Amino acid sequence: MSRFWSPVVHQLTPYVPGEQPKLDTLIKLNTNENPYGPSPRVLEAIRAATDDSLRLYPDPSGDKLKDAIASYHGVSRPQVFVGNSSDEVLGIVFQALLKHEQPLLMPDISYGFYPVYCGLFGIQAQQVPLDDSLSIRVEDYRQPCGGVILANPNAPTGRLLPLSAIRQLLDDHPDQVVVIDEAYVDFGGESAIALVDDYPNLLVVHTLSKSRSLAGLRVGYAVGDATLIEALERVKNSFNAYPLDRLALAGAVASFEDDDYFRHTCQAVMRTRAQLTTQLQALGFEVLPSAANFVFARHPQHDAAMLANGLRQQAVIVRHFTAPRINQYLRISIGTDAECARLVQVLGSLLS
Amino acid sequence: MSRFWSPVVHQLTPYVPGEQPKLDTLIKLNTNENPYGPSPRVLEAIRAATDDSLRLYPDPSGDKLKDAIASYHGVSRPQVFVGNSSDEVLGIVFQALLKHEQPLLMPDISYGFYPVYCGLFGIQAQQVPLDDSLSIRVEDYRQPCGGVILANPNAPTGRLLPLSAIRQLLDDHPDQVVVIDEAYVDFGGESAIALVDDYPNLLVVHTLSKSRSLAGLRVGYAVGDATLIEALERVKNSFNAYPLDRLALAGAVASFEDDDYFRHTCQAVMRTRAQLTTQLQALGFEVLPSAANFVFARHPQHDAAMLANGLRQQAVIVRHFTAPRINQYLRISIGTDAECARLVQVLGSLLS
Repeated sequence: MSRFWSPVVHQLTPYVPGEQPKLDTLIKLNTNENPYGPSPRVLEAIRAATDDSLRLYPDPSGDKLKDAIASYHGVSRPQVFVGNSSDEVLGIVFQALLKHEQPLLMPDISYGFYPVYCGLFGIQAQQVPLDDSLSIRVEDYRQPCGGVILANPNAPTGRLLPLSAIRQLLDDHPDQVVVIDEAYVDFGGESAIALVDDYPNLLVVHTLSKSRSLAGLRVGYAVGDATLIEALERVKNSFNAYPLDRLALAGAVASFEDDDYFRHTCQAVMRTRAQLTTQLQALGFEVLPSAANFVFARHPQHDAAMLANGLRQQAVIVRHFTAPRINQYLRISIGTDAECARLVQVLGSLLS
Repeated sequence: MSRFWSPVVHQLTPYVPGEQPKLDTLIKLNTNENPYGPSPRVLEAIRAATDDSLRLYPDPSGDKLKDAIASYHGVSRPQVFVGNSSDEVLGIVFQALLKHEQPLLMPDISYGFYPVYCGLFGIQAQQVPLDDSLSIRVEDYRQPCGGVILANPNAPTGRLLPLSAIRQLLDDHPDQVVVIDEAYVDFGGESAIALVDDYPNLLVVHTLSKSRSLAGLRVGYAVGDATLIEALERVKNSFNAYPLDRLALAGAVASFEDDDYFRHTCQAVMRTRAQLTTQLQALGFEVLPSAANFVFARHPQHDAAMLANGLRQQAVIVRHFTAPRINQYLRISIGTDAECARLVQVLGSLLS
């Protein structure tokens, strides 16, 4: 606390990201990184951009990347916004589109950053409880509001809503922006980007951190009606005109140019997820159906915090949230087959 | 305009960055980039970091970079904040430290982004006119305020205040944060970072875009009392937990490890600036004394807009601002000797 701080700072509850240990020897299944590296073409493109041109500013609007994304999703450049990670994109979305007189609706259990943005930007939030199976029920969102945001698949549950439910939500809220955060959609979901031409109130947010193996490069984007994108551009250009550096732009463009690699690694993660789910069930875990690159699991006879600690003592780290309703679950990122085998082995020893 | 926009968006006047032409054939003296590329050690460090580890999140707190900066400036890690460009750092500074009941004071002619941040964050600003020689007079800031921000050297004038004047400003405002934006200080100024241990109300902002030839990498930082830095960290962690990607962190650390290259290129820019100043004066220009990597010059008999257009027709671009008091000036970034010779040649032909 300090007299020098702006008043808002005193009230903030900042986001706490998952641990990024500085030890290489851990099996790191705690922050939903992809177990496979990025496409070799991404690395080549970055190396090719690593030259004296770094003395020059990047393209402030990132047009080449917007075009690559637009082409990939079958939309046009004015329907695309790019930013320094989907966290930054979401921050700008909250500022530009979600601050209204009525409260913003969001699931009570979802990405922990949403309430943090509300605190920073003075947005009133209304949490809508998941049902007893930890699923989002879109009919529960039929109430006066200034906007809706949810993750699909949801985090940390992994549960997926079908596009029909997203359509229902959009039809129920024609005068509010509905933001669908699809950070994990490439691992088995169907993207709502297919609906943007039909719904001027729909904004879909994606990241290159998960399915494109580029958490270290910090690139995210949003797709929606050009009017929504214009609001994002206005806020972005009032905060940081050049958020994406030259290397991030080059690497991100290359990622969209190597669709085979992308599909191949997503499929590999999904195969491992299916195996891991079976193995966890064999150990007695209840595993929520996941369309993401993690599973959310609990054991009826073993405390989740104890299991997380036991795993850590064996150099395997997973995420455990202490929030009500989910404090008996572990969120386990999908690693390589070998990493998941080690996880199952250690869990087996802890349970026996 | 749209019912979907948050109200603040309707009122924004976003920043307009200098043109980033997509043609390589232009002599680009319009956005104060360094004419020399970054240190070869920076390029090496980036290439070495371009590997499968890009699948992993970067260090959210950027500790290695903070340590490199702290060591360079003789401060400690908790006195350093790092961000995705000094624009982002400044944006966070405005949010975290400069929003108070009293207005924020800033020069009427300075970096054009300052009023833009005020618009975004709802900060009341009070502009303090430069004197007739386009200098900042710190005694003009003796008035009730919620904080002070100025650039030193100032942009686009290039004029430098001595540290004694900065001390005066800090003594005059013990209860307000005073932000000194030193984007250009390495080209002949003395950094106020020397004063941070004496003044808990001082925050100094730097960028790697100019003197370290890394405009394309987007890295900036702030140095000040740990209490001020804590406010910045709280806002940063409420907006984007990982603003610096792995490559930017690696390259920025390497830049601080190659001090010889840094000093050598800064000296080269200063030598060229002295030559260019003499040559412009020989053509009849009035050139303000500059401690930056640009000069601000006007010709008593020739209209600045006409000169800027004439230069552009000969493939040389400089910056011309249409704001009152400075609309007869050209801001010319210091290029290589050859680029500046071409500029002088074209100007000579336009004047004759």
